[in-house]
Amino acid sequence: MRDLSDPSAPVPAPASTPTLLVLDTEPLPRLGSLTGRARVEHADESTLAERLPHADVLLVWDFASRTVRSAWPGEGPRPGWVHTASAGVDHLMCPELAASDTVVTNARGVFDQPIAEYVAALVLGMAKDLPRTLEFQRERTWRHRETQRVAGTRACVVGSGPIGRTIARTLKALDITTALVGRTPHTGIHGPDDLDRLIARADWVIAAAPLTEQTRGMFDERRFGVMQPSARFINVGRGQLVVEDALARALAKRWIAGAALDVFEHEPLTPDSPLWQAPGLIVSPHMSGDTIGWRDELGRQFVELYDRWEAGRPLLNVVDKKRGYVPGR
Amino acid sequence: MRDLSDPSAPVPAPASTPTLLVLDTEPLPRLGSLTGRARVEHADESTLAERLPHADVLLVWDFASRTVRSAWPGEGPRPGWVHTASAGVDHLMCPELAASDTVVTNARGVFDQPIAEYVAALVLGMAKDLPRTLEFQRERTWRHRETQRVAGTRACVVGSGPIGRTIARTLKALDITTALVGRTPHTGIHGPDDLDRLIARADWVIAAAPLTEQTRGMFDERRFGVMQPSARFINVGRGQLVVEDALARALAKRWIAGAALDVFEHEPLTPDSPLWQAPGLIVSPHMSGDTIGWRDELGRQFVELYDRWEAGRPLLNVVDKKRGYVPGR
Repeated sequence: MRDLSDPSAPVPAPASTPTLLVLDTEPLPRLGSLTGRARVEHADESTLAERLPHADVLLVWDFASRTVRSAWPGEGPRPGWVHTASAGVDHLMCPELAASDTVVTNARGVFDQPIAEYVAALVLGMAKDLPRTLEFQRERTWRHRETQRVAGTRACVVGSGPIGRTIARTLKALDITTALVGRTPHTGIHGPDDLDRLIARADWVIAAAPLTEQTRGMFDERRFGVMQPSARFINVGRGQLVVEDALARALAKRWIAGAALDVFEHEPLTPDSPLWQAPGLIVSPHMSGDTIGWRDELGRQFVELYDRWEAGRPLLNVVDKKRGYVPGR
Repeated sequence: MRDLSDPSAPVPAPASTPTLLVLDTEPLPRLGSLTGRARVEHADESTLAERLPHADVLLVWDFASRTVRSAWPGEGPRPGWVHTASAGVDHLMCPELAASDTVVTNARGVFDQPIAEYVAALVLGMAKDLPRTLEFQRERTWRHRETQRVAGTRACVVGSGPIGRTIARTLKALDITTALVGRTPHTGIHGPDDLDRLIARADWVIAAAPLTEQTRGMFDERRFGVMQPSARFINVGRGQLVVEDALARALAKRWIAGAALDVFEHEPLTPDSPLWQAPGLIVSPHMSGDTIGWRDELGRQFVELYDRWEAGRPLLNVVDKKRGYVPGR
């Protein structure tokens, strides 16, 4: 068994052509350079459990699937390396995988700038009342309103990984005073003890944390109650960070002025969800990080990691499986 | 007569309490500190011509009105100072006013940051496909799309005054490569000769120029034809910068990918205007610079100028009446 105390140690590749199992629902881009270097097999949700024991590497391309958790072989033969083409790893982590010597890597970096821009679009769009402008346009109504200046407002970004940090940098570039909250305080990063104080004074509260046992349901009735009536809440992390009923009630009771959700407890959101029509809520279909070319970029990133793995070099973006994210800066 | 060669020279105030005539349609904020220092009279479009000859100062608070042009007394008695609570002065300039020794000042500075943020909201909103997201939400439809990354795109901002420069600075903060075009080339500012070349390669073309004889109708069929099919056009300057029919045709023919107009040839836009439903066009009611508190800020700015005028100090924000804007940086 590998030395689990050093997650950056190389993962041994087999002597013969390795089997790369891909959990996917659509064609993969840019894996052409692996031809001859890997035996690429495909699995879907129904075949994953059967094929996993024979794979050296698992590429979780269908990052909406939670099948890895149920299909993971436990003590039996299993891949030594699992890569997910996503920033979050909550959809695949299970106690057996966490306890095993299998290394898990993620798509750290690919989504940082796109998600930060998406958050800036939401912040500015809400400040400038763009949704109502589009409504009045549909009604052919000329109705002047005064809007908000974002310069000088305050944001609290929850999640101090590369996505949260890039969001903070982007908001600061718009002259928004921005505080970052992470699991452990650092220079420039507040710890969880500061959270309530920071969201109580924020004009913008932005959830960009990984889903862990510490963050699940952290935005609940109490936390929405602490926020200012003029505050807006944005979630680009994971749906389960938010108690959705509590948010809907907070919006209905005007505890906060507005919100935008890009992620949901259950995705896709079904047509009967009350969230579609919650007052002051912008609903988008888990797309904040997905800019044109993102699939190619995810493919290129995996091939780069594969090159390292094949050469016996340490992998990058290695997830701390206990914490549920890639630690460090 | 004053020395017209030095527009920054003080404007003489009368010995007795001056008459301040205000062209307005709504109560003025924050002029309380002028009590006892000025005899404040009000005029509307019907009474302006009659009252202008008796006024020492004209404050054009109703900046949507064009009455000053027709009501200006020509060679007769007239105010020595006219201030408009707007950035543009096109609505009040007439040859007689331009030729006179009356000093014209404007609201330079008040709208820079708000308009820059508004442009950033439009750029990011269009890049992230926010209008369609809101449409799908209304239809309770979950439809994932790939959106655009703005970092690395190119913008061309037409108008190198404080508003244009603040727009450019804000877009650069979002890592958008931004070129500024002004009337005369300077360090960091392109001249009109570069305009076609710059808009031909721009992802975002932003009109923020004053309305002058040089800029009237500058965005016409030919210029929309030069732009890329992926380009978006935004006008936050003056409606008459744009040939509206040509823009509507360019959008219908997909010569460009989208546009946003905050200003129009005729305001308010009437319900029968085809622009409300032009494909890919966002219509907003001339509000880009109007953030909460803007009226107070305009009032404070006028009182500051009045303090200077009363004390015999040179005014600020003095418009070059021939050019139609405040020159210099």
